[in-house]
Amino acid sequence: MIETATKPAVTVETASLDSIATPALILDVARVDRNIARLRGRLSDLGVQFRPHVKTGKSVDVARRFFPEGSGPITVSTLAEADYFASHGFNDITYAVGLAPEKIGRASALVAQGVDLTVLIDSVEQAGALADAAGRGVAMPAVLIEVDCDGHRGGLLPDDPALILIADMLRDGGVALRGVLTHAGESYACRDGAGLPEAAEAERAAAVGAAQALRAKGHPCPVVSVGSTPTAHFARNLDGVTEVRAGVFVFFDLVMHGIGVCATDDIALSVLATVIGHRPQKGWILTDAGWMALSRDRGTQAHPVDQGYGLVCDVDGVPFGDVIVGDASQEHGILTIRPGSTAALPELALGQRVRVFPNHACATGAQHETYQIVETGSRAIVAHWPRMRGW
Amino acid sequence: MIETATKPAVTVETASLDSIATPALILDVARVDRNIARLRGRLSDLGVQFRPHVKTGKSVDVARRFFPEGSGPITVSTLAEADYFASHGFNDITYAVGLAPEKIGRASALVAQGVDLTVLIDSVEQAGALADAAGRGVAMPAVLIEVDCDGHRGGLLPDDPALILIADMLRDGGVALRGVLTHAGESYACRDGAGLPEAAEAERAAAVGAAQALRAKGHPCPVVSVGSTPTAHFARNLDGVTEVRAGVFVFFDLVMHGIGVCATDDIALSVLATVIGHRPQKGWILTDAGWMALSRDRGTQAHPVDQGYGLVCDVDGVPFGDVIVGDASQEHGILTIRPGSTAALPELALGQRVRVFPNHACATGAQHETYQIVETGSRAIVAHWPRMRGW
Repeated sequence: MIETATKPAVTVETASLDSIATPALILDVARVDRNIARLRGRLSDLGVQFRPHVKTGKSVDVARRFFPEGSGPITVSTLAEADYFASHGFNDITYAVGLAPEKIGRASALVAQGVDLTVLIDSVEQAGALADAAGRGVAMPAVLIEVDCDGHRGGLLPDDPALILIADMLRDGGVALRGVLTHAGESYACRDGAGLPEAAEAERAAAVGAAQALRAKGHPCPVVSVGSTPTAHFARNLDGVTEVRAGVFVFFDLVMHGIGVCATDDIALSVLATVIGHRPQKGWILTDAGWMALSRDRGTQAHPVDQGYGLVCDVDGVPFGDVIVGDASQEHGILTIRPGSTAALPELALGQRVRVFPNHACATGAQHETYQIVETGSRAIVAHWPRMRGW
Repeated sequence: MIETATKPAVTVETASLDSIATPALILDVARVDRNIARLRGRLSDLGVQFRPHVKTGKSVDVARRFFPEGSGPITVSTLAEADYFASHGFNDITYAVGLAPEKIGRASALVAQGVDLTVLIDSVEQAGALADAAGRGVAMPAVLIEVDCDGHRGGLLPDDPALILIADMLRDGGVALRGVLTHAGESYACRDGAGLPEAAEAERAAAVGAAQALRAKGHPCPVVSVGSTPTAHFARNLDGVTEVRAGVFVFFDLVMHGIGVCATDDIALSVLATVIGHRPQKGWILTDAGWMALSRDRGTQAHPVDQGYGLVCDVDGVPFGDVIVGDASQEHGILTIRPGSTAALPELALGQRVRVFPNHACATGAQHETYQIVETGSRAIVAHWPRMRGW
């Protein structure tokens, strides 16, 4: 029986992949544990702290696989996640999305209740809003300045004069500067591992360069935070970095497989579906898992191997080979042979069950309320883990 | 104050689009009412019953805009929707996804509690499973046979001999055949209205042809059900059809706009977002509404006008013109000028709010727990309407 952190463990004697209602979100906890151990070992060898991003799981039960006890450190993508994880005992939290000034009040409330919260900014306007709030005596989070290492979305270039200007404004306003943060989001555009060591080095160099620029002007910079799942798995040297964030590695998915970060049998998350029809002339098998269960994410669309809306496996999680969810309506999945393959569509009878590996675990998980927990190779449902959502 | 069906109306005195937390799902109820009145008027003129598909709204409050009182008729996409709407007094329900045999028990439970439930099948295997259940004395739903009018997903061609075989099996097994159902899903591939009257006629002809084939063999066929939002708005003649289903018309969206079914100012659903950063050298404005708030749906990707992850409006819902959500991370939206446009990016300060029209209302709505209800042109939040989810 897998321990459930959110409520007393409930034994689910008879539930199995053969009996539960479909579509359903299935999580292989043995793979979760293995994925965590793999990255934890890497980061330990590299001598940096691990601050997992809990936006992928959005579940205290998943987070407790990293931290069987204790209070973090964790990374979140919304203040709703911060509230939820704080209510479950996590109190070392970095909110790694640029702060809207209107959200300072909610951030302050978390600090006032004892959370060691760090927020992210990349503009003098945000620094000014924080300094104003500090001037009103509000409980203040610590601040990281976002650095752009690859042009992916927000952040300042390491040599942008605004970096120092922001640090000056925070100091003068009485707001604690904790350091710098960057995210190599463009690493997702790599293929088969090529370019990932270089992306990791560029991520490291940008963060360390910004930290050096701050320190040269007398500013403290105890935290130098980098991270993405691809670069975390391919970094060769993290000198000067103090912590690594990564999220999707906990479940992995077909995008990560296409980039070259994991094998398909590392993928811990799948959607259980039931066959509801056949169109043999078209080479289609229809299931009850459409995009509402799989998500609309087509993250492998531009990959050399396009997985459609997901890679189809038997009920035990073993891929058939070239069978994908070729198209999806809201509540219909259409199983097809991958274009170009000469494989035959498997014989799948009405009512038979399959599992689908997702393109993007963060997106597919978000379509569901609950994880059904299994161990690799077993059909028994050993626990139900709820997910949180919203903002 | 808008009446809320699910709980006593709560006056939300001070909430407005300027003050609520973002991202948030905004619903313009005046546009909902106008969209309903438009299609209701068309179908009344065409002399057919209207059975709206509630999978778009997934909300009893939205459904009560069609039916201020009474029990339907409605269409659902999951048995969880059937359970939810039945619990709110709707008891004339068609479950319009091919029935998995394992779901007969849940369908039967709804019938046993007094719901007039109709299910959908297209195979002799499903007919056999229903006949077996009837033989065990289980309370039985009525049955529609799915007809394929355009090769979109499931269903039998109108002249498929299996149509009669299924009807015979149902009759011999003591299961009530209620008629035929088809869905012109390929109408979504039309552009600017071209081809839609023809798609509607093909949909009508397939359903009526199948009904005639059944009647010629002595089978009852009181229901001839067709429907998609595009064909419902472009059908010129529905002779022989008894009811029309449509779902997304209630909110409309950018896909429907691209097909030529609605104007942008018919779109009732939007996502409220806050500006969190700027990258002027890249021509980007960053907001706090990423794909988690907008969905991963890229339904206009193959349209002549690709709307990215959505069309950007001011806080009052007036489009800026060529500003779209050009890219999205989980909690970041990147506002850009549409490729090829010479328009300038508007000046949007840190903290300023915008609204985003979605590609696909069904997908975007599903990312949220609650509708924030406004009237066109007003920023006051007049009600909160919860959504249901799951299976």
